[in-house]
Amino acid sequence: MDLIGYIDSKREEHLNELKEFLRIPSVSATSEHKKDIERAAHWVAEKLRAAGLENIEITPTKMHPVVYGESLHAPGKPTVLFYGHYDVQPAEPLDLWTSPAFEPTVRAGNLFGRGTADDKGQVHIHIKALEALQNATGGLPVNIKVIVEGEEEIGSVNLWEFMTKNRERLKSNALIVSDTSMLAKGVPSITYGLRGLNYYQVELTGPAQDLHSGVFGGAVPNPLTILSEMIAKLHDKNFRVTVPDFYKDVAQISPAERKALHRLPWKEKEFRKTVGAAALCGEKGYSIVEQLWTRPTMEVNGMWGGYIGEGAKTVIPSKAYAKLSTRLVPAQNPAKIAKLVERHIRALLPKSVRCDFQVLSTGKPWVAPYTDPIFQKAIHSLEKGFEKKAVFIREGGSIPFVTQMHDAFKVPCVLLGFGLPDENAHAPDEHISLDNYFGGIKSIALFYQALAA
Amino acid sequence: MDLIGYIDSKREEHLNELKEFLRIPSVSATSEHKKDIERAAHWVAEKLRAAGLENIEITPTKMHPVVYGESLHAPGKPTVLFYGHYDVQPAEPLDLWTSPAFEPTVRAGNLFGRGTADDKGQVHIHIKALEALQNATGGLPVNIKVIVEGEEEIGSVNLWEFMTKNRERLKSNALIVSDTSMLAKGVPSITYGLRGLNYYQVELTGPAQDLHSGVFGGAVPNPLTILSEMIAKLHDKNFRVTVPDFYKDVAQISPAERKALHRLPWKEKEFRKTVGAAALCGEKGYSIVEQLWTRPTMEVNGMWGGYIGEGAKTVIPSKAYAKLSTRLVPAQNPAKIAKLVERHIRALLPKSVRCDFQVLSTGKPWVAPYTDPIFQKAIHSLEKGFEKKAVFIREGGSIPFVTQMHDAFKVPCVLLGFGLPDENAHAPDEHISLDNYFGGIKSIALFYQALAA
Repeated sequence: MDLIGYIDSKREEHLNELKEFLRIPSVSATSEHKKDIERAAHWVAEKLRAAGLENIEITPTKMHPVVYGESLHAPGKPTVLFYGHYDVQPAEPLDLWTSPAFEPTVRAGNLFGRGTADDKGQVHIHIKALEALQNATGGLPVNIKVIVEGEEEIGSVNLWEFMTKNRERLKSNALIVSDTSMLAKGVPSITYGLRGLNYYQVELTGPAQDLHSGVFGGAVPNPLTILSEMIAKLHDKNFRVTVPDFYKDVAQISPAERKALHRLPWKEKEFRKTVGAAALCGEKGYSIVEQLWTRPTMEVNGMWGGYIGEGAKTVIPSKAYAKLSTRLVPAQNPAKIAKLVERHIRALLPKSVRCDFQVLSTGKPWVAPYTDPIFQKAIHSLEKGFEKKAVFIREGGSIPFVTQMHDAFKVPCVLLGFGLPDENAHAPDEHISLDNYFGGIKSIALFYQALAA
Repeated sequence: MDLIGYIDSKREEHLNELKEFLRIPSVSATSEHKKDIERAAHWVAEKLRAAGLENIEITPTKMHPVVYGESLHAPGKPTVLFYGHYDVQPAEPLDLWTSPAFEPTVRAGNLFGRGTADDKGQVHIHIKALEALQNATGGLPVNIKVIVEGEEEIGSVNLWEFMTKNRERLKSNALIVSDTSMLAKGVPSITYGLRGLNYYQVELTGPAQDLHSGVFGGAVPNPLTILSEMIAKLHDKNFRVTVPDFYKDVAQISPAERKALHRLPWKEKEFRKTVGAAALCGEKGYSIVEQLWTRPTMEVNGMWGGYIGEGAKTVIPSKAYAKLSTRLVPAQNPAKIAKLVERHIRALLPKSVRCDFQVLSTGKPWVAPYTDPIFQKAIHSLEKGFEKKAVFIREGGSIPFVTQMHDAFKVPCVLLGFGLPDENAHAPDEHISLDNYFGGIKSIALFYQALAA
């Protein structure tokens, strides 16, 4: 049986196995899922072994383990390093899921469940592509090294220590990642740019303890009001971030790239529909695609304080909290931006509150020269695997590891994404298109054959 | 034995009986304490009977029963209606109590336990004052009606139905309440003003669902940012509420009242210590006491949205929430203020979010003319009972029942409070000063004698 025929014959088997993977609630953010994380790591290790990889290792870190496997039986052929992650975002709010987050369910050609698109489904595409090459062609056409980590959703805290410790062993000619999205349904895509991500937490303390808003209201600082006032000053009326020097190092895109971006079959109407808000808002002077892919942002990702239960409680809280993040673009420096953000926030706050400012993570932006031959081989494989025209795109999200690898290992990074922008990664009803899942397996298998040619 | 001598001779007995009352965990907020609520109601009924009251009734409501008793054997003398409550706030967080919340303990002249100050201790003061009059003087000098309810801490939901159903029976010449605080230790006080309270909840919806802040950040409305921007506009730089016409009906206090307020032995240093914030902030042009008692406020009592768990989640939330409240002063109209607040909030919001605005409750402010003879009799009784100079004060909090009674029954309301501002009502380590407890019993007994004179 030929490669594509073999993959087609295994559809049901592959899908059932993926569901098994998705049922493990491997949420990396909360300690209660520690055991599920372990289970997911072992599950990945077992499937790598089944795909014919060797020297399988589950390496503990200070938090969640890294799974490794390799196959080095193609002398003279390129060596590729595949990276993915088996951890997922928390599933909350649970009541907004149509079917339970960890009970994968197919509806209308899509598989629903936490991790379907980000990133378990895409990791599984790769494992099954390798297995198909082993079983249908008698072996892997290239040398392959696989790492699947468990801390991507919390900032890949310990991954880099693992990478540097295993630097010699992990050497490769290219890094392959599938943790991104296609531009749209029916438009297979290679991502050549990512934004960086800094994540911050702010804790304000006003009164020493919660106070009765009747007895004390009108004379004491309310940290929720003060936090709101601070956040309100983080953007100007043109939706530009007000942190001084925030845009100082931002590289303007070339006229050629801008033209290419505007030629993409990107549908504003679809985007508006996905967002579902009454109106959009973004930095003045830039198209939506430019805002999303080429401009830095400041977002409030969470905010809380005081009484948040049912009904009424007349409290002036002692504390108010916000989780903030900045998306970064070339050539912003994350450490420098973190300092500027902290300085600005402290400067905006009155002396009636104390501020604890924490940088939870930092991550650099990344852009690749997609004229490199490996990118051309990748895009042709996508076009064969999907039987559709493929495109080069950027993305607004962040994969810190890609930037680190690019900088430290000096190898091209090829981002073949099989998600879709409206598949609710990080949100309720996350899903993956089955067409993209199966097309992904074919494309990856074809890509490795092309790399060996 | 004279009245005061009798009360002094019963100190230990009174204290032990109060401890018995406090050991019943009559928390009204949670259904698990339903039986304790019943026990507390029966305990009160039994002690009213022991104090010589008649026609004792425990009237069930949709939630917690109201206890009633009366003594109408003083023809030609005034009739007073006493109101108190036997329910208490939840004791959580339990680990912050020095001694257990429902095991009353004396330390350094204070009795610690949930309900000591709010309001079981104060209800007990009244029961023991009545008993003392019966036993030491051979009868009550005035006609008295007593209601002790079990829902005060959850908004007195069913009390008003009870009041209107028993309207004729409850008629009186004055309402007496002990559920407030003295200005400070050693300063017996009568509260002649309370602020009203409107409570609101705002729900903003931006995107139709939570979105990935990488994929969508920079082009979509973030309801947390927009909620913050709205809240930031609710106060101007002088900490005045910006709602148009908010201050229009606010009555300025008279120069005489302002002078009296400034003469009070109110200690700013103590207040700052209790608040424990790095600095205070309040409406410009008013003293702290004026801000707390005579000026309306707008406070954020709770706020939430997005990811509020441990670590990082890169989400742009679909929804953001705030609980807001306004404290009101004479002659603001709660219904009118609620409309103005809603209109202002809607006007401040951009069209990129939808807003659901709910008024959870409204409540009128109240001020009494303390030159009325009954107030003069009350303050002289306090001075005799405590052997200290007593003062007239206002309070920033709200007791909706007082306003309702004042409006519906057209009677003077006399608020004799025996708590202290730092006795942790609603918080761990709630306590009452034993001096105030015993002084309270004497003052109330003397007050009823004075009323009959």
